Amino acid sequence: MLGKIALEEAFALPRFKEKTRWWAGLFATDVDKHVAEINDVDSIRLNFAEKHGVGLQILSYTAPGVQDIWDPKDAHALAVEINDYIAERVKAHPDRFAAFATLSMHDPEEAAAELRRCVTKYGFLGALVNDTQRAGADGDDMIFYDNEKWDVFWSTCEELDVPLYLHPRNPTGTIYDKLWADRKWLVGPPLSFAQGVSLHALGMVTNGVFDRHPKLQIILGHLGEHIPFDMWRINHWFEDRKKLLGLAETCKKTIREYFAQNLWITTSGHFSTTTLNFCMAEVGSDRILFSIDYPFETFEDGCDWFDNAELNETDRYKIGRENAKKLFKLGAYKDSTA
Amino acid sequence: MLGKIALEEAFALPRFKEKTRWWAGLFATDVDKHVAEINDVDSIRLNFAEKHGVGLQILSYTAPGVQDIWDPKDAHALAVEINDYIAERVKAHPDRFAAFATLSMHDPEEAAAELRRCVTKYGFLGALVNDTQRAGADGDDMIFYDNEKWDVFWSTCEELDVPLYLHPRNPTGTIYDKLWADRKWLVGPPLSFAQGVSLHALGMVTNGVFDRHPKLQIILGHLGEHIPFDMWRINHWFEDRKKLLGLAETCKKTIREYFAQNLWITTSGHFSTTTLNFCMAEVGSDRILFSIDYPFETFEDGCDWFDNAELNETDRYKIGRENAKKLFKLGAYKDSTA
Amino acid sequence: MLGKIALEEAFALPRFKEKTRWWAGLFATDVDKHVAEINDVDSIRLNFAEKHGVGLQILSYTAPGVQDIWDPKDAHALAVEINDYIAERVKAHPDRFAAFATLSMHDPEEAAAELRRCVTKYGFLGALVNDTQRAGADGDDMIFYDNEKWDVFWSTCEELDVPLYLHPRNPTGTIYDKLWADRKWLVGPPLSFAQGVSLHALGMVTNGVFDRHPKLQIILGHLGEHIPFDMWRINHWFEDRKKLLGLAETCKKTIREYFAQNLWITTSGHFSTTTLNFCMAEVGSDRILFSIDYPFETFEDGCDWFDNAELNETDRYKIGRENAKKLFKLGAYKDSTA
Amino acid sequence: MLGKIALEEAFALPRFKEKTRWWAGLFATDVDKHVAEINDVDSIRLNFAEKHGVGLQILSYTAPGVQDIWDPKDAHALAVEINDYIAERVKAHPDRFAAFATLSMHDPEEAAAELRRCVTKYGFLGALVNDTQRAGADGDDMIFYDNEKWDVFWSTCEELDVPLYLHPRNPTGTIYDKLWADRKWLVGPPLSFAQGVSLHALGMVTNGVFDRHPKLQIILGHLGEHIPFDMWRINHWFEDRKKLLGLAETCKKTIREYFAQNLWITTSGHFSTTTLNFCMAEVGSDRILFSIDYPFETFEDGCDWFDNAELNETDRYKIGRENAKKLFKLGAYKDSTA
Repeated sequence: MLGKIALEEAFALPRFKEKTRWWAGLFATDVDKHVAEINDVDSIRLNFAEKHGVGLQILSYTAPGVQDIWDPKDAHALAVEINDYIAERVKAHPDRFAAFATLSMHDPEEAAAELRRCVTKYGFLGALVNDTQRAGADGDDMIFYDNEKWDVFWSTCEELDVPLYLHPRNPTGTIYDKLWADRKWLVGPPLSFAQGVSLHALGMVTNGVFDRHPKLQIILGHLGEHIPFDMWRINHWFEDRKKLLGLAETCKKTIREYFAQNLWITTSGHFSTTTLNFCMAEVGSDRILFSIDYPFETFEDGCDWFDNAELNETDRYKIGRENAKKLFKLGAYKDSTA
Repeated sequence: MLGKIALEEAFALPRFKEKTRWWAGLFATDVDKHVAEINDVDSIRLNFAEKHGVGLQILSYTAPGVQDIWDPKDAHALAVEINDYIAERVKAHPDRFAAFATLSMHDPEEAAAELRRCVTKYGFLGALVNDTQRAGADGDDMIFYDNEKWDVFWSTCEELDVPLYLHPRNPTGTIYDKLWADRKWLVGPPLSFAQGVSLHALGMVTNGVFDRHPKLQIILGHLGEHIPFDMWRINHWFEDRKKLLGLAETCKKTIREYFAQNLWITTSGHFSTTTLNFCMAEVGSDRILFSIDYPFETFEDGCDWFDNAELNETDRYKIGRENAKKLFKLGAYKDSTA
Repeated sequence: MLGKIALEEAFALPRFKEKTRWWAGLFATDVDKHVAEINDVDSIRLNFAEKHGVGLQILSYTAPGVQDIWDPKDAHALAVEINDYIAERVKAHPDRFAAFATLSMHDPEEAAAELRRCVTKYGFLGALVNDTQRAGADGDDMIFYDNEKWDVFWSTCEELDVPLYLHPRNPTGTIYDKLWADRKWLVGPPLSFAQGVSLHALGMVTNGVFDRHPKLQIILGHLGEHIPFDMWRINHWFEDRKKLLGLAETCKKTIREYFAQNLWITTSGHFSTTTLNFCMAEVGSDRILFSIDYPFETFEDGCDWFDNAELNETDRYKIGRENAKKLFKLGAYKDSTA
Repeated sequence: MLGKIALEEAFALPRFKEKTRWWAGLFATDVDKHVAEINDVDSIRLNFAEKHGVGLQILSYTAPGVQDIWDPKDAHALAVEINDYIAERVKAHPDRFAAFATLSMHDPEEAAAELRRCVTKYGFLGALVNDTQRAGADGDDMIFYDNEKWDVFWSTCEELDVPLYLHPRNPTGTIYDKLWADRKWLVGPPLSFAQGVSLHALGMVTNGVFDRHPKLQIILGHLGEHIPFDMWRINHWFEDRKKLLGLAETCKKTIREYFAQNLWITTSGHFSTTTLNFCMAEVGSDRILFSIDYPFETFEDGCDWFDNAELNETDRYKIGRENAKKLFKLGAYKDSTA
């Protein structure tokens, strides 16, 4: 399928090349290749896109990124630098690249203002945040955005009518020491990423963020970070038990309704037709978006799978492009490769 | 279907009635009913079983149980008390009740010895452990069993040829404070249970427990605590990335092979045919066991669902009874209600 | 779910009461009830609809109906009588009843004219035809509509922008004698209905009807009369073999494309969530429509299943109502019970 | 996966080379290749098997074969010739080839005797029959085996403890003229094959063959020739309606029970993971057998799909080999390539 839209596609700042290289050593089987790919916002990924039928890539700064910086000032300064940097790169290929804003999430007002700047000044399509913000004097605290302090931020998302992609970051500090240090192979895609994001996203559900912000749109990668698997079980406990015990105060709709009105999932890094079919039943194809997770995954793996997956044609086009066009109001978007 | 076997079925010690009542207040919509049901090891649950076609119930001490006691001596003493207590109760209805041993998991040798006592003296069918053992001076530590210190225990399981049911417990201490305190509605079945057990079980996989103990059999409840959802993704990262980076040293087989040789999942608390179908693809019906999770779930919900689920008859009997008969060597078992 | 739209809902002419009674004896376990229900176009089915959340019923004359009459004049006269009759009934409850035209299919021009009359004069929403038209001196011939003679009829459907529901009828004549007489229990829903309609529908596909009439919309009941099961296999043979041997001349698109552009399936009489999930993968939820098949099926069976089926909320509303609103341009339709 | 067993694998008699060539023209895109492959019972298919991990091929004479011959004497003579021919070929590679008997189905006693000869003299593993037997003076009649006349034959299958593979054949005579002549692209795998076999198999179900022969084992190709798709619907009509009207007299069990006790399905020619998953839910993996349908399908298509299908490992081995070992009592079979 030509003209696919992909929306969990990472870049890094070239000036952090050495840090990027060190980081790549944790997961990449070819460190040089990874560093080259993540620092490129030009021909490498354009060529891959051309070859594999991706029309538009919505770029975002790689994890953990700004969410790893516990000094608020440093975090904000880096976010601004990243946004200015990628705005420039995107401008060079406006039909092939778009961007999500990078945000320091120490302060809701500041985050809202930077999001507003990126959307209004640069035309960014939303923001991508890497789970909780590291904070505190030694970086051991975690700021969640599922409480009322963040209402001003979520209101801004609603007002600007842009979604936020809730992306994982690696566990740090005490949590890392207690849970992950002795089982390091589970850090990242095999387990920790989904555990972090599902907790955060369901925290938003149960703490009433979507009741207070009914227009808010949140995107989850990796086919929903495990949540679709427990749709029945979550619904059963919420509706049959916890709402009777007080959950109904903050969480008035069912988990299925939040997934129908506020949540989206992408295929990033989970190229499984069986799991996609399952998610089509539990989440619905109207809320599923194609994505790759490049350069942590390859265009080849993601696109060859999706283009050849046994799937009806209506949903292939919806998941591959049409749903994204609706979500991001890309009415005018007509991919040059389509 | 008559003669079903159920294996995540909880009881409590009557002498903890007040604590049980307090605990029930956290999740039960009818506290009195719950307290009565969990303290009964007689006619209440026999009547439910009779009415809903359950032949054999394998009973286990309710969570968090002994895993919540951070004093090793107290923990062991309680485990012994519980085992002696339930052995007596089970003896009264040997064709309808069986038991899993309760174990203090502070010390591998001690745990192994108590398991041996229960299996050889009482004929218990294995053990059920509630995730990590709380430990440390203030109960803030968590003992995982996924390292070499526990080899003596796992060898005993293999030698006795009995499985261990890795059941959840509630998060405590620092983990609770950092992750769960502000999103309490997610504690338990909606999220925290699966996060704890999946980390522990995959820790066993990646830290080589099953390579060192290839005959070991571990049972996971709730259709596998999210792991089946990510079977493709875990396999992809392990086989295509992490094994190249060193995981191959401790974890020689694929995640699918461990699920085929060492792991079982039960339907406890997850009465969803769509999810069961998905697990039949990713795990396989030979490794799925019916269970209820009584009295946290009702016989009615679990059995009415299972008996009427759209399912081929071969797998209904396998999941409902025959797989359990194989796992527990119940060759002679002929349910009186069948 | 309130406000469902159902579109394979049968009525009969009261003057054929005795024939209806005889016919009912072939399949109904309560003949009197069936006769009363099929002859009612008023309070019986309105009460069922009220009770089970059906807003709009699109009524059609029961099978085999006019397709069973091999005399062309008699067939046409009966079709006109039926259309005039149901137009009157529908007028009494315009927010709860709509109708499909009944057509004699002996002559394409005549069928097109009667369809035009029904749509323009009465506002019928399309037509429902019971598979092939019985024809010939002794009723042993079968008229298929998958050849060029019928282009004038299909062009009229396109021009009027209304779909045709291709409904089954019972096998007759030589076909009955050779295939079905000695296995009568398979006549009807268990097998013969799907075999007839799938042959006819795939005949339209392979003989180029949809290539010549790309806007034509055909509805198939019973979750697609077996065709979705073989979507992969049909596609494989068409694309990899038969198109190389000449099929490409009349059938330029893939079977999946025809299902995405020209075909719809309904849930009539197939209240299985597992099969629905499968069809969501192979056909796509955008092309699935709720239906009951009353009074051959009950409102209770169809609606209780659908309302409680494990399904995401987006697709429940689409399948239950929104897809039908799009197909039939019911923009103004706002169900009174919704 | 090495050591797969495949059981719908066709050969032809070399002396019919010209007829085989003419026939191949109806479906093959490379006639010469097809003729060479189907006439080879030696290195061509052994090489394919070696390359694609097939251990044992159970060979059968290609359709329509003897079922196309309406003269009873000619039919029987050809069957005997084929059986003697293939017995010789199989003997040369006893660890790689096995055979199904070819039978003339004009006379139940004769068919039973020839089956007995093949099983006892040659060690054939059962029989494969191409749907109904053409019969009558002009070949326009069809002999079904679903009535009491055939009890002697089915009793012999039971006594010999071998299964019968009910394979399709092409429609002929009046049926062809009335239904298929004008939609020839649907003849064969796209539709007519499944329609013929599903009618025959369900005729056996409803006419009581399995009630009179509870040990009889019938194998259906192509993932069950559409029947699994309607498992719910067939069960609904049989259990809720038709049994009340008399079907209970000949058909005492449910359709799901016959599939659990008497029927098997193979993957021949239907290399779809989504459909396989669906069949695992509706039929169960214990009753599914790998097959290719060579040389109408390629080893490459069938094996590459199966070996790489997203599937749990337990079921891959069961479907790929272990189920066949049970069905055919191949306890001693240890594939040389495994």
